[in-house]
Amino acid sequence: MLSEFDLIARIRARAGTRADVVLGIGDDAALLRVPSGHELAVTSDTLNAGVHFFDDVPPFDLGWKALAVNLSDLAAMGARPAWCTLALSLPAADPAWLDAFVDGFATLAREHEVALVGGDTTRGPLSINVTAHGLVEAGTALRRDGARRGDAVWITGAPGEAAAGLALLRAEREGRPAEATDADGRAHLLVRLQRPLPRIAAGRALRGLASACLDVSDGLLADLGHIAAASGVGAEIDAGALPVPAALAALAPAVRLRHQFTGGDDYELCFTAPADADAAVHAALAPTGVAATRIGRVVAGGGVAVRDPHGHYAASPHAGFDHFRP
Amino acid sequence: MLSEFDLIARIRARAGTRADVVLGIGDDAALLRVPSGHELAVTSDTLNAGVHFFDDVPPFDLGWKALAVNLSDLAAMGARPAWCTLALSLPAADPAWLDAFVDGFATLAREHEVALVGGDTTRGPLSINVTAHGLVEAGTALRRDGARRGDAVWITGAPGEAAAGLALLRAEREGRPAEATDADGRAHLLVRLQRPLPRIAAGRALRGLASACLDVSDGLLADLGHIAAASGVGAEIDAGALPVPAALAALAPAVRLRHQFTGGDDYELCFTAPADADAAVHAALAPTGVAATRIGRVVAGGGVAVRDPHGHYAASPHAGFDHFRP
Repeated sequence: MLSEFDLIARIRARAGTRADVVLGIGDDAALLRVPSGHELAVTSDTLNAGVHFFDDVPPFDLGWKALAVNLSDLAAMGARPAWCTLALSLPAADPAWLDAFVDGFATLAREHEVALVGGDTTRGPLSINVTAHGLVEAGTALRRDGARRGDAVWITGAPGEAAAGLALLRAEREGRPAEATDADGRAHLLVRLQRPLPRIAAGRALRGLASACLDVSDGLLADLGHIAAASGVGAEIDAGALPVPAALAALAPAVRLRHQFTGGDDYELCFTAPADADAAVHAALAPTGVAATRIGRVVAGGGVAVRDPHGHYAASPHAGFDHFRP
Repeated sequence: MLSEFDLIARIRARAGTRADVVLGIGDDAALLRVPSGHELAVTSDTLNAGVHFFDDVPPFDLGWKALAVNLSDLAAMGARPAWCTLALSLPAADPAWLDAFVDGFATLAREHEVALVGGDTTRGPLSINVTAHGLVEAGTALRRDGARRGDAVWITGAPGEAAAGLALLRAEREGRPAEATDADGRAHLLVRLQRPLPRIAAGRALRGLASACLDVSDGLLADLGHIAAASGVGAEIDAGALPVPAALAALAPAVRLRHQFTGGDDYELCFTAPADADAAVHAALAPTGVAATRIGRVVAGGGVAVRDPHGHYAASPHAGFDHFRP
């Protein structure tokens, strides 16, 4: 068992730093320098045991994901990540668990040059809150409220794999037969679920090009609905235009489309751009190694409709995740 | 029961705003403007049910305190509060409870012109994390590492009342006889425990004057120990110099000193200042309405010693609160 101070020391040793950190972990607050001409982007997300993850999730993956879901919000704004705080509630201070958790967190932090500058460790049911800070050139941030009628709707990567990974884990835990996949496919889906890649470079590349953008955390239809509501428009998605990743190819279309439309946790970017900007979008994203696919259009009205000539998809188009649904 | 979106809407309606908030609640991240010549101060604190508060604490007080403990950290840096995020895990979405909680939070936020710019609501055991952001003129922040041998040690207000309030609540819950207090004294102690006042104005006034500063959250001796460790010095406290508030006057000296030395939750500022600066300290604090008392000195060596000629105080001088003590 570790004391609270040993625990903080263990985290502090892996916190990283940057030239713009005047004062990091260890005082009442961190002191940070925001460069002139920039806006500060701030986002905060919590992961709770039994709600956002199974208790036996590998701690490395949990540390990774707790930071990743926040960096993904910064990506969706077109911001460059800079600093974060970590508030960790733990039922007990197990050094091996903590070291693996911090490893996962620090590995992703290093990749994006994020310094951990403060936080809190306390006893309680396992819960992880991260508040992440990014920098974006003033006036260039990607927002939800800029979609215009006639714009195209795009998605990076291929959504649905994280939801398929979650369905697999659930089936295995309940002893139900898993959906069609092999061992390689299973491993791939679990990585997509447990170690999401925040699309930072893609978000940066889309500044000045995307009219609206967000990350898909609640499900593609629900999240696109947020863009529609914020922008005062509607949107249509062509079910047949969605990219079908290899790991989902063997699924029945209705099952696959449910994962792709309503599954959260992919952390791909859904964005809108002028209808004549296809070449510009592809050119901007090419250096980032992240592909995007045009999957629909912005229309007058409100809400999100699915065009599905084969009739595979029949669920409510607004079915996202609501933590408080009875 | 509220849906997650109703719940966010209810919080958002009370979030407040400021001219430097480019974009508040409702996008992937908030966008904020930091004025040039300033550093950003960031702090994050969590309150968990059963650890930091009893389940039946009035929700107004809980909302107040969740923000207050964070603003107190900004006060200890000499920073002016600006923005915060709120991550709320709730077992259920009870509208009456939530409204009272947000009332308490928003009341204190308004008093200090703090805008709530983002956060997260999720299902889980009751837990509240706030990350608060303040602004401080570059190079003027109060830190823990500036105490010098020969400096005087000071405390604002009178510590120990929050700890006495907690002891009262514990005694009442366990049916034990309460320590000596009357109904007025009881009410005063509970306010001190449940609605702490962040010493923002005092922290601002001490810039350029205090050599080191922090807020007392773990107990005076433990927290002064943090200043000593960060500054590479030792400290001595005169037990007889501590201000004795009326509500603690009837307690046995040994009980009172235990509350005053080891009780957390007062959120007074403990600071050091040059030995010849008494008049300057009093003059700087006078307009803030917060008094301070000189209670000891910075010495060579390390750790914190108590000078107690009457021998009332016998506990370990390092007894602070450790969440992971077995």
